[in-house]
Amino acid sequence: MSTDVLAELDDLLRARRNASADESYVASLHSKGLDKILEKIGEEATETILAAKNAASEGSKSLVHETADLWFHSLVMLSHLGLDYRDVLKELEGRLHTSGHAEKAARGGAGVS
Amino acid sequence: MSTDVLAELDDLLRARRNASADESYVASLHSKGLDKILEKIGEEATETILAAKNAASEGSKSLVHETADLWFHSLVMLSHLGLDYRDVLKELEGRLHTSGHAEKAARGGAGVS
Amino acid sequence: MSTDVLAELDDLLRARRNASADESYVASLHSKGLDKILEKIGEEATETILAAKNAASEGSKSLVHETADLWFHSLVMLSHLGLDYRDVLKELEGRLHTSGHAEKAARGGAGVS
Amino acid sequence: MSTDVLAELDDLLRARRNASADESYVASLHSKGLDKILEKIGEEATETILAAKNAASEGSKSLVHETADLWFHSLVMLSHLGLDYRDVLKELEGRLHTSGHAEKAARGGAGVS
Repeated sequence: MSTDVLAELDDLLRARRNASADESYVASLHSKGLDKILEKIGEEATETILAAKNAASEGSKSLVHETADLWFHSLVMLSHLGLDYRDVLKELEGRLHTSGHAEKAARGGAGVS
Repeated sequence: MSTDVLAELDDLLRARRNASADESYVASLHSKGLDKILEKIGEEATETILAAKNAASEGSKSLVHETADLWFHSLVMLSHLGLDYRDVLKELEGRLHTSGHAEKAARGGAGVS
Repeated sequence: MSTDVLAELDDLLRARRNASADESYVASLHSKGLDKILEKIGEEATETILAAKNAASEGSKSLVHETADLWFHSLVMLSHLGLDYRDVLKELEGRLHTSGHAEKAARGGAGVS
Repeated sequence: MSTDVLAELDDLLRARRNASADESYVASLHSKGLDKILEKIGEEATETILAAKNAASEGSKSLVHETADLWFHSLVMLSHLGLDYRDVLKELEGRLHTSGHAEKAARGGAGVS
């Protein structure tokens, strides 16, 4: 399933990259430029954090929604800079398979950042 | 490919959920608790934003790395709260297919957040 | 000068705490609740970071503007929780004067966080 | 009091701007460069948000601490770019006094950002 969803989103993002900003949210983000897209990353990260803090009392629906928003705007950012989800998955895959110490590799990645 | 990577990461995260915090980065995050995991979300979001700003002059390698870190720690957060990537992909899929107006649906999702 | 500005802002924030949300931005933030105020903290922090990255090419006017927004919404947050700028300045003062090693004290503070 | 604390911090930040990075936390931040300082802004903003969410159950001590960290690293950022707290207070003062509609002016400022 995941392949389909991410691939479909990727197709959508490519198709809307140069659509009319009046008709397309994705196109309007691109036309506003990188800073506007990065502001959305910051906003959605904050909203994800707040939804996670509220999950114990309010349930996880909002958390799933905000995490989806965070990933969605990450995909728009990648698209804006000529990248896509495959680059990120390849990076994650590399951490998994670089050695038998899969998690240590993943941590190494995270630790550098 | 993506299904495999995300599914493998999911398996890894489940396996390490209750491992020794001394030996596992994932286990150490879980043992430190939700706030520590959310601090990482905030850190990786900031590092992603900085890497995106630097991409024009420094290339995209760091951006891919930081975005992978952001998604990785999102997955740890979901795992900590009993969720996983399938919940997020299902949410994204719902936005794609709720109507023929795929992007509008996606925007509606983003707009509510 | 600073005392006057912060004290005046403090007076303003107290006066607007319970004003009509229709007429007052501060009152509207309070009525929307803590999460909305914290979303603003996250937004303004991101905008400050972007303005700082742009300062070399675009000048510092936007950076000063965004930092003012960040501090302003910090003050609204403190007010919402029954605190004010004096509590923060007292904390900073404590780090300065706890010992002769003023900066080390400040670092200790930062390091704990 | 506030003038003294902010002025003292300003003096400290100027004195440590070019100190040895081994001996001074402020100097080490400057030597690591703008991105490292901005990462700290992002981190402290996240920690402030989490402390605010926890204030109801855990009290306000941590929130005051984290807000002080956020302001402290804001001051280091300003110093790194040749600015200081006076620029920010002047901006806030301008919003207070631009017209009799003090808060509306403040909102205008926030709204633009």
